[in-house]
Amino acid sequence: MNLTVDRASDVPLYRQVVDQIRDLIQRGVLSAGTRLPTVRALADSAGLTRLTVQNAYQELQAQGLIESFVGRGTFVAERPASRLPFPGTPPAQPPISWNEQGMFVEMLRFNEATDLISFAHASPAPETYPLREFSRALRAALEDPTALGYSSAQGEAVLREQFSRLLLDRGVAVPPEQILITNGAQQGIDLAFRALAGPGDVVLVEEPTYPGTLEVAARIGQRVVGIPLDDDGPSLAHLEGACVAYRPRLYYGVPTYHNPTGICYSPERRARLLALAEEHDFLIIDDDVYGLLPLDGPAPLALKADDRSGRVVYLTSFSKAFMPGVRLGAMAAASPQLAALVRTKQHTDLTSSPLMQRACAHYLQRGHLGTHLQAVRDHYRLRRDAMLFALARHVPECAWTHPKGGLCLWLTLPPGLAEAEIYESAIGAGISLVRGQAFYPQPQSSGRLRLSYGAETPERIEQGIAALGRVIAAHLRRRDALHARAYREAAPLV
Amino acid sequence: MNLTVDRASDVPLYRQVVDQIRDLIQRGVLSAGTRLPTVRALADSAGLTRLTVQNAYQELQAQGLIESFVGRGTFVAERPASRLPFPGTPPAQPPISWNEQGMFVEMLRFNEATDLISFAHASPAPETYPLREFSRALRAALEDPTALGYSSAQGEAVLREQFSRLLLDRGVAVPPEQILITNGAQQGIDLAFRALAGPGDVVLVEEPTYPGTLEVAARIGQRVVGIPLDDDGPSLAHLEGACVAYRPRLYYGVPTYHNPTGICYSPERRARLLALAEEHDFLIIDDDVYGLLPLDGPAPLALKADDRSGRVVYLTSFSKAFMPGVRLGAMAAASPQLAALVRTKQHTDLTSSPLMQRACAHYLQRGHLGTHLQAVRDHYRLRRDAMLFALARHVPECAWTHPKGGLCLWLTLPPGLAEAEIYESAIGAGISLVRGQAFYPQPQSSGRLRLSYGAETPERIEQGIAALGRVIAAHLRRRDALHARAYREAAPLV
Repeated sequence: MNLTVDRASDVPLYRQVVDQIRDLIQRGVLSAGTRLPTVRALADSAGLTRLTVQNAYQELQAQGLIESFVGRGTFVAERPASRLPFPGTPPAQPPISWNEQGMFVEMLRFNEATDLISFAHASPAPETYPLREFSRALRAALEDPTALGYSSAQGEAVLREQFSRLLLDRGVAVPPEQILITNGAQQGIDLAFRALAGPGDVVLVEEPTYPGTLEVAARIGQRVVGIPLDDDGPSLAHLEGACVAYRPRLYYGVPTYHNPTGICYSPERRARLLALAEEHDFLIIDDDVYGLLPLDGPAPLALKADDRSGRVVYLTSFSKAFMPGVRLGAMAAASPQLAALVRTKQHTDLTSSPLMQRACAHYLQRGHLGTHLQAVRDHYRLRRDAMLFALARHVPECAWTHPKGGLCLWLTLPPGLAEAEIYESAIGAGISLVRGQAFYPQPQSSGRLRLSYGAETPERIEQGIAALGRVIAAHLRRRDALHARAYREAAPLV
Repeated sequence: MNLTVDRASDVPLYRQVVDQIRDLIQRGVLSAGTRLPTVRALADSAGLTRLTVQNAYQELQAQGLIESFVGRGTFVAERPASRLPFPGTPPAQPPISWNEQGMFVEMLRFNEATDLISFAHASPAPETYPLREFSRALRAALEDPTALGYSSAQGEAVLREQFSRLLLDRGVAVPPEQILITNGAQQGIDLAFRALAGPGDVVLVEEPTYPGTLEVAARIGQRVVGIPLDDDGPSLAHLEGACVAYRPRLYYGVPTYHNPTGICYSPERRARLLALAEEHDFLIIDDDVYGLLPLDGPAPLALKADDRSGRVVYLTSFSKAFMPGVRLGAMAAASPQLAALVRTKQHTDLTSSPLMQRACAHYLQRGHLGTHLQAVRDHYRLRRDAMLFALARHVPECAWTHPKGGLCLWLTLPPGLAEAEIYESAIGAGISLVRGQAFYPQPQSSGRLRLSYGAETPERIEQGIAALGRVIAAHLRRRDALHARAYREAAPLV
């Protein structure tokens, strides 16, 4: 690698190195996966100090352009961050989502490492599970042996009836005939992406979005275009640009208590999204898994509540507001979409367990869910507040969202801190969390982390955020020291 | 349509019509979906009697070349039967399996019509379900609230351990680490076809085979090649021809108590299939869902038992030998395949219910399954024998297989009887069964029916087969009358 530095320039030496390597990567001279010289080798060949090179590599890494692996070396990142230049001219074909790095697998890996303080999972708290009532409901369901036979692919009528009533609270008025029972929201997403779009089709998602959706789309071979999200929802300029440029088949979103940010779409964004769907003939997947978990005041209604043209496919799950282990959720869609979804459900796994379905129906029929929801909302409000309080106290250098519902918030690291390093150090300090990168359709160092507050007590939340604060403070000291030295070194040597 | 008949020929008039229309279809002059003239119109235009035309249409229908729909008319069949000319020269690219006619959906439709005598479902009998023991197992599992949380994608370790032991009975020695828990065999098939082969890949299946597999392959866009089955397994000549011609990625089969025929592969066929997999580098999906249901003597070991090269992916289910409503099954595969399967399971529906998994593990740990299997085998042996006896008594004109295990047999209709008509008449007579056509990768009038004996009592089996006998006898009388008249009419008019 031939680098030429201008020692007389105002631009610091390390920045010159950064700019030249970035240019080589962007022009494709250094392709994805290329191993870069070691710090020592590059310093020797370019006549620089090791510190300058180290500093440049760190900056390139923070930009997501290169990746370092202990013991293996430094490499040009796979498909380096290429944010689509919306609302300018987008590339003719967006790339297919990445899925080779298994972020989703990694994200779930710490499920079983119980010694860590877990901010990684948007899981409900096991101490909230209404085991006694549910056990009674199971016994009632077991009285009829057909609960252990095959069932219909669409799901048990008794549970569809209960969902039909429950969804009224979300503003969704659909008869039981338009409901399909799934094994939770993940199956709902898989069914929707398989049944309603094909390989090569363009699918729009929020950026950031739920990684399980990115995995599904990548596996099918769909092209995922991320629409940047702000506090009010997806950027309309980007959304409109993508509609014109790509003729998307689907838009997938979490309009209420969004994962990972916790935001809700504003009424204006909702209206415009629905209008665009009609105008450009695409379907919207309204993932409402957090809709039953408002923590401050009532939740906005589901997007499906405003669906006038039958273009919104609604999906929800018992996993967040009730118990993940029942593995049940529901979808609601207009007839043509519903038929395709039921058909796909059937050859995917025939049916969901009729025993579990009937037990949940019994539980709902007895009116237990309302009481349960009241209790868990109080529970998670305390935990969210504990996390917000601890963040203000222990990591004042960061910014974070203030979710009004759901189970997670989105933290922005101070500039110059690489999320991958914070993540590794956090694990070392006994805390699990999720790297922001996992939530983007194309790899990029987002400088963000997702923190979930549902699964830990307020005490452990305080303890964990304090530890995270120490980790971030240590990295900030290191960053500042490196920058200071780099600037010193960049001073003219004459 | 211009037909010319030679009244002086030895060939009966109706045969001449059949030959000419068949030729038009095969040369593509009459394309799939083309509506044929009514019997009256064709008779008038060709100067034939209506009976001759009616007779010709009936023969074309029995050959699968045309289809009649009451009230809509008669049409050239979609993708008419094109049996691959193995072991001759196969077409460069086999077609993608059909799935537009929803045979699979239809097959399951009568699940809920309880007034029919059901020979349609290879279902276990609800009166065999061990509800008391299972209820106890569920209570034990409910004592730990984590049973209602998220679980690992691969499945609960306690259940994988139990499967690891259970599979020893099938000759399959795999540690729990090589087992994946699924929501029954249908999900196992879906995962295998998604994770281990891609769109456009060639997949070999038995002909006939399980329709749920054909649906999965068609949905992914895989090319399905049927290998004809005889009493000893797949035809080796066809198998070898397909390996050379198509470089298949997968072979899917039910080597033990095959669905729909009930046959078992001979040791020679098993050995040759395994050798071919190694020689031509493809994987074998060994669907062993009936392996725990031998009715005469011990079952042959699973194909996986002879797997020396790690090319066999094994799958089984609790649905046939235990209870479908638990929606649980298992797969066993070598590490690279297993990793891909677990990954696919994860983004398909995250995990199977840990509560159900732990309850089944409790049930197995207590040694209940052995007792249960002994009881159900006695139960189904009685029912199979009742069906065999009733068939000999009531439908002596047909041939059928004599399964040594599993839940179904395969009946061959006398020549000239259209399975679609028998099927419709049987429904009318209060019996549900499955048309042979559903089990073929390409549409064809197979002249066969699948009859399942698991779900009805011996009394109702006798009653149902007697009714089927009356249906077949009526159709035979009609066939004979038509043939006799056609031959009479074909005599020289001079």
